[in-house]
Amino acid sequence: MSTPLVGIIMGSNSDWEVMSQAAKMLEEFGVPYEAQVVSAHRMPDDMFRYAEAAAGRGLKAIIAGAGGAAHLPGMVAAKTIVPVLGVPVPSKYLRGEDSLHSIVQMPKGIPVATFAIGEAGAANAGLFAVALLAREDAGLAEKLEAFRARQTEVARNMKLEPLK
Amino acid sequence: MSTPLVGIIMGSNSDWEVMSQAAKMLEEFGVPYEAQVVSAHRMPDDMFRYAEAAAGRGLKAIIAGAGGAAHLPGMVAAKTIVPVLGVPVPSKYLRGEDSLHSIVQMPKGIPVATFAIGEAGAANAGLFAVALLAREDAGLAEKLEAFRARQTEVARNMKLEPLK
Amino acid sequence: MSTPLVGIIMGSNSDWEVMSQAAKMLEEFGVPYEAQVVSAHRMPDDMFRYAEAAAGRGLKAIIAGAGGAAHLPGMVAAKTIVPVLGVPVPSKYLRGEDSLHSIVQMPKGIPVATFAIGEAGAANAGLFAVALLAREDAGLAEKLEAFRARQTEVARNMKLEPLK
Amino acid sequence: MSTPLVGIIMGSNSDWEVMSQAAKMLEEFGVPYEAQVVSAHRMPDDMFRYAEAAAGRGLKAIIAGAGGAAHLPGMVAAKTIVPVLGVPVPSKYLRGEDSLHSIVQMPKGIPVATFAIGEAGAANAGLFAVALLAREDAGLAEKLEAFRARQTEVARNMKLEPLK
Amino acid sequence: MSTPLVGIIMGSNSDWEVMSQAAKMLEEFGVPYEAQVVSAHRMPDDMFRYAEAAAGRGLKAIIAGAGGAAHLPGMVAAKTIVPVLGVPVPSKYLRGEDSLHSIVQMPKGIPVATFAIGEAGAANAGLFAVALLAREDAGLAEKLEAFRARQTEVARNMKLEPLK
Amino acid sequence: MSTPLVGIIMGSNSDWEVMSQAAKMLEEFGVPYEAQVVSAHRMPDDMFRYAEAAAGRGLKAIIAGAGGAAHLPGMVAAKTIVPVLGVPVPSKYLRGEDSLHSIVQMPKGIPVATFAIGEAGAANAGLFAVALLAREDAGLAEKLEAFRARQTEVARNMKLEPLK
Amino acid sequence: MSTPLVGIIMGSNSDWEVMSQAAKMLEEFGVPYEAQVVSAHRMPDDMFRYAEAAAGRGLKAIIAGAGGAAHLPGMVAAKTIVPVLGVPVPSKYLRGEDSLHSIVQMPKGIPVATFAIGEAGAANAGLFAVALLAREDAGLAEKLEAFRARQTEVARNMKLEPLK
Amino acid sequence: MSTPLVGIIMGSNSDWEVMSQAAKMLEEFGVPYEAQVVSAHRMPDDMFRYAEAAAGRGLKAIIAGAGGAAHLPGMVAAKTIVPVLGVPVPSKYLRGEDSLHSIVQMPKGIPVATFAIGEAGAANAGLFAVALLAREDAGLAEKLEAFRARQTEVARNMKLEPLK
Repeated sequence: MSTPLVGIIMGSNSDWEVMSQAAKMLEEFGVPYEAQVVSAHRMPDDMFRYAEAAAGRGLKAIIAGAGGAAHLPGMVAAKTIVPVLGVPVPSKYLRGEDSLHSIVQMPKGIPVATFAIGEAGAANAGLFAVALLAREDAGLAEKLEAFRARQTEVARNMKLEPLK
Repeated sequence: MSTPLVGIIMGSNSDWEVMSQAAKMLEEFGVPYEAQVVSAHRMPDDMFRYAEAAAGRGLKAIIAGAGGAAHLPGMVAAKTIVPVLGVPVPSKYLRGEDSLHSIVQMPKGIPVATFAIGEAGAANAGLFAVALLAREDAGLAEKLEAFRARQTEVARNMKLEPLK
Repeated sequence: MSTPLVGIIMGSNSDWEVMSQAAKMLEEFGVPYEAQVVSAHRMPDDMFRYAEAAAGRGLKAIIAGAGGAAHLPGMVAAKTIVPVLGVPVPSKYLRGEDSLHSIVQMPKGIPVATFAIGEAGAANAGLFAVALLAREDAGLAEKLEAFRARQTEVARNMKLEPLK
Repeated sequence: MSTPLVGIIMGSNSDWEVMSQAAKMLEEFGVPYEAQVVSAHRMPDDMFRYAEAAAGRGLKAIIAGAGGAAHLPGMVAAKTIVPVLGVPVPSKYLRGEDSLHSIVQMPKGIPVATFAIGEAGAANAGLFAVALLAREDAGLAEKLEAFRARQTEVARNMKLEPLK
Repeated sequence: MSTPLVGIIMGSNSDWEVMSQAAKMLEEFGVPYEAQVVSAHRMPDDMFRYAEAAAGRGLKAIIAGAGGAAHLPGMVAAKTIVPVLGVPVPSKYLRGEDSLHSIVQMPKGIPVATFAIGEAGAANAGLFAVALLAREDAGLAEKLEAFRARQTEVARNMKLEPLK
Repeated sequence: MSTPLVGIIMGSNSDWEVMSQAAKMLEEFGVPYEAQVVSAHRMPDDMFRYAEAAAGRGLKAIIAGAGGAAHLPGMVAAKTIVPVLGVPVPSKYLRGEDSLHSIVQMPKGIPVATFAIGEAGAANAGLFAVALLAREDAGLAEKLEAFRARQTEVARNMKLEPLK
Repeated sequence: MSTPLVGIIMGSNSDWEVMSQAAKMLEEFGVPYEAQVVSAHRMPDDMFRYAEAAAGRGLKAIIAGAGGAAHLPGMVAAKTIVPVLGVPVPSKYLRGEDSLHSIVQMPKGIPVATFAIGEAGAANAGLFAVALLAREDAGLAEKLEAFRARQTEVARNMKLEPLK
Repeated sequence: MSTPLVGIIMGSNSDWEVMSQAAKMLEEFGVPYEAQVVSAHRMPDDMFRYAEAAAGRGLKAIIAGAGGAAHLPGMVAAKTIVPVLGVPVPSKYLRGEDSLHSIVQMPKGIPVATFAIGEAGAANAGLFAVALLAREDAGLAEKLEAFRARQTEVARNMKLEPLK
């Protein structure tokens, strides 16, 4: 398998149901990636090492998902200049509004590119990573254009059930 | 002046107070950019043309800011595969929570990378654009590392006023 | 079948469960309508063509439903002077508060008439379209008055279960 | 002065600062209107009489603005089939989120077309009333198209201040 | 059966599951009451007649429950000086936060005494009505003291399951 | 001065700007009242003594205002069967939404009648206390009817400024 | 059994499902504790006695959980200088946002240390109590370090399911 | 000066206006403390070093304040077993609701004791630190009791302005 270009990390394996949407998207485009649990709060040193090594290991983007007081994306971003894409994982009681606030409201100086709460956001973080890579990879850009075109066709062909 | 690599667009010139933070950041890094009003609702056709032409004109990223029912970032993203960075401009009554929802909650298929509400978000969108470009520009990457280091120094040297 | 007077559009066929309430209402009043998927983000050009053609095709109102970063109603409204009625479709995690913000908080210059989140809002958008048409159609106005009267009777005759 | 086609009502004269934006819009289009205080809570019987008389007096639309527990638009809508356009007036502490909820979340059966919180919403309610009338008035439709075109021009010509 | 001292009204029979908690409380205290559907939006004239007749019919308090854009409590309060107790019925998508805003945020001049969202609020509105009546009815006051004492005992005797 | 029938209490003298609206209302109706600071958190024993003595001292209602984690109304209600009217005082950062939640969301068994956030709520708590007393005081009932009638007249006579 | 060092109290036995997480944590660390229902609203005098006795009985921390208008933690804190740890129990309709506001927004002078809504918060309150005690108990501090280390190992060993 | 027992840290010197309230409280009680800027995002390595050294340097508690995506308290807590007290600093647009979510909603395993948004929360974090230390310091406990008693007296002596 090729060297991963995108790292997908998340605070717990319970986040994988959501975050696997990012992985599926990368797989669909043939972008080599890795996915693993890196918990900001339970594995802070591993998290820093992960972030410090990211550029050197050839990662072009890091997709980080977390829920509640979601510190993973912002802390990784603080330790690397590799672009970090944050995905707010829905929380049990506040449904991800807390996760969204914790990820998107970064202070001036350390950006995290944030996507929608939950599965749609994870898939879109994957797509955004593809778009980043596509800028240096004409084949990938073509695939992305084709994906968009297919997506348009699927929407165009959607039928509505007759009224009951 | 060099061909712009980043396009900054916004729904109205009243958004410029916020969005100029993105411009300042790009200027600080010497990244050529352009900035103009492209209103989703008042200039829909111009918006589509802007998005359609973006890739061909060499834009590597588009920073789009809007407030309230903020449709500009998402609609531009729907028309180009150039990465779109969205900035929620604070609204008069809901203070940007509406802008944030309208930008970040994109459906699966069309990503918008979203940043914080207001000035911090605009500056960070600028920084994120720099980080994107830095991946193909070692000089810029170095500048970004230096910026980060200076930023760390500034924070380290912050003094607190004595208690009154 | 007669030429449709009302167009019902929505971002995805998953919105039909909600949006079919608008269709049912129009059917109940014998108002000719059409219903189809027109996705703002996946079919932006179709959306613009739909909006541009609406007046010429004789549409008197457009009912547009969408969820999350719901751009469909506002973007259609930007491209036609035919009245646009927006329905916030409930989203998975934020339960439609994001959809509501994205639809109702339009900037000065391009109005979207917004209704309640979900089924009630879709039904009411249908009723509002009937009311618009009723202003030029005495028969329809009569039917609307009769509908209201029946509705009052139904409410008046509601019985409460005895306490257990 | 001609018979008013649009009635603008509001819960208190303190709402006029916001609601006058609707009046200005109607004036700009030469649509005859009337504007007055009709308080749901302090003048309930007047409110009902207003609503009952609206159709007979030739009103084609009613623009109703109120803040907080904003019952005026919904209660007027319950008493007439004339289309009611609701404007959430910002409240002192909750900034109009309460007004918005009280107006937009109408139950199935009695629609209120709702617009944005505050001045933008009031102006857009005025514009929407123009659009309704324009359907039976080719001259007005032309004026509306021209207004839109001018609006586009104004946005196109917006200049951004040079960076400081 | 005795003349009702408390009237329980609600916008729809679907509110009865919540509002029956108020009835049960009154029944427990032997307070004569009546319960019926009076919809603000579908039966506006009945609602006004209900409110106008309330004092004359000997009602000492009105408990009014409604959901979403909940106008019933406030509009009844506008038409009578009989104390109105409002119960926010939970709504499908916003879970009663809209109902709460629509009931509690009444403008100066027309008070509605508001209780918690849902069953607890309905039961407490019943208890509050009992407390009002208890001020002129020593027997009822005694019953209320006894109810409180029993309630304290029940809480005191609550056992916790052993840990698993 | 007569024995107070209504007790107005609040957590701090900084709440008086809001709570004095309740006092003014009672004064306008000639209802004897007392007003003082009783802090739930800084004077818990005084608070309990106040609540325990309330009925015996002839208080017919207690108006309690507090902000933030506003425990005063609910804790007083837990210690007396005298009706407690709660007023959410606006808080510095959350603007009273926290105060509202802390007052209105009482559990089943101990009701607090809650009014709007801020000045309007305080005035309405005063009016509601008048309405309670009016049930046993025909003169007061008459005054309340007259107040309502005047209020209607004031609203009816409100003029709107000419458009600028 | 040893004298309890930590008291766990809650408003109702229905809170035990959440609050038992605190107990489990203390049990895991061998910290003697007691757990019981102490309802602020239904057992106010017991609550005060509990708080007054806490220090004398040797309690080093009190963990108090409550939902909705959650007054238990703050009122106990008002009556003792023993540190109070508050846990917002999720409420039926507002999902604990009301509980959180009622617990965390304490006024200056009486602190309540607040933790996350629900099970995670209860477990963390337990852990925080352990950390407090660990400052005077080297063995406990060691156990806490070991707990942290195991927790890190567990996270490190989390595997992700293969994509389907 | 004595070795600090409490460390006050914050993300920026602009947080000092709020966080100095904690310092003032500690000063009032004669508790030795230190205060400095430690930014999670701009000084991540310093932050880790600070947390790692805290226990060894004799810190008994760490008060950490931050705004927006406030990661400082949680990340410090992840690196030490010294109790961490978190203070949500109000943010420019969301007024601290984002800060609160980012601090209080910590996942199971790493607790942060959270206090109110803004000045009150900072002062209370200071008081809570005093209460922690008071458990091993009888003199401090006495001072805290005296502080409480004075606070009660101040509240008891609050006078209300006469009505205007």
